[in-house]
Amino acid sequence: MNYQAINLSEKLSLFNEYWQPKIVGEFNGHDLMVVKVKGEFNWHRHDDTDDFFLVLKGNLTIQLQDGDAHLGPGELYVVPRGVEHCPLASEEAHILLIEPKGVPNTGDIQTAAVKEAI
Amino acid sequence: MNYQAINLSEKLSLFNEYWQPKIVGEFNGHDLMVVKVKGEFNWHRHDDTDDFFLVLKGNLTIQLQDGDAHLGPGELYVVPRGVEHCPLASEEAHILLIEPKGVPNTGDIQTAAVKEAI
Repeated sequence: MNYQAINLSEKLSLFNEYWQPKIVGEFNGHDLMVVKVKGEFNWHRHDDTDDFFLVLKGNLTIQLQDGDAHLGPGELYVVPRGVEHCPLASEEAHILLIEPKGVPNTGDIQTAAVKEAI
Repeated sequence: MNYQAINLSEKLSLFNEYWQPKIVGEFNGHDLMVVKVKGEFNWHRHDDTDDFFLVLKGNLTIQLQDGDAHLGPGELYVVPRGVEHCPLASEEAHILLIEPKGVPNTGDIQTAAVKEAI
């Protein structure tokens, strides 16, 4: 049994790539991931899962079809399943993501990042 | 559709009771909850779900059978299902919890807090 807490800042210090989620833990069949983002991602949706975002540092806009959600540090937003969205960060931001294991981050296995554990 | 981010500090400012999780959102059949804790909870386990803790403020010890997990701000820990644990905070701490909807926080419906949405 592992008694070590997962320090999110420490995990985020281990890599620099943007839009490449890294797995830091698991919970009920979901991957707990940290990601650094900057710029605009792509429009996509997940038909079978909600999409959890918690901002740890910086600011994130989640563009939705009829409006935007604006998140700062300590703010979270859940994009309901099936809803098209496109994350956007004008400056670097750090995010905690939760998705079921094996879900492609782009909604499409062809274009998805490989999620490695750190 | 709601485009409002969930500000965890703001939600935490709405109540003062300890060990009374408040529902702030939902994700894939789980409740996203904030809770203020101080003192020792009780020893319990959840046979059917992992237990997610992310410390937002303060420090939390999760006592386990053969050791303790020590968490500060920005640190998370997942107690695997079936594992006995007892949270402990010598000073007030603020936590983000994630549990499947309807799971009693004490592991026992008879003693569980009623989780209300805020």
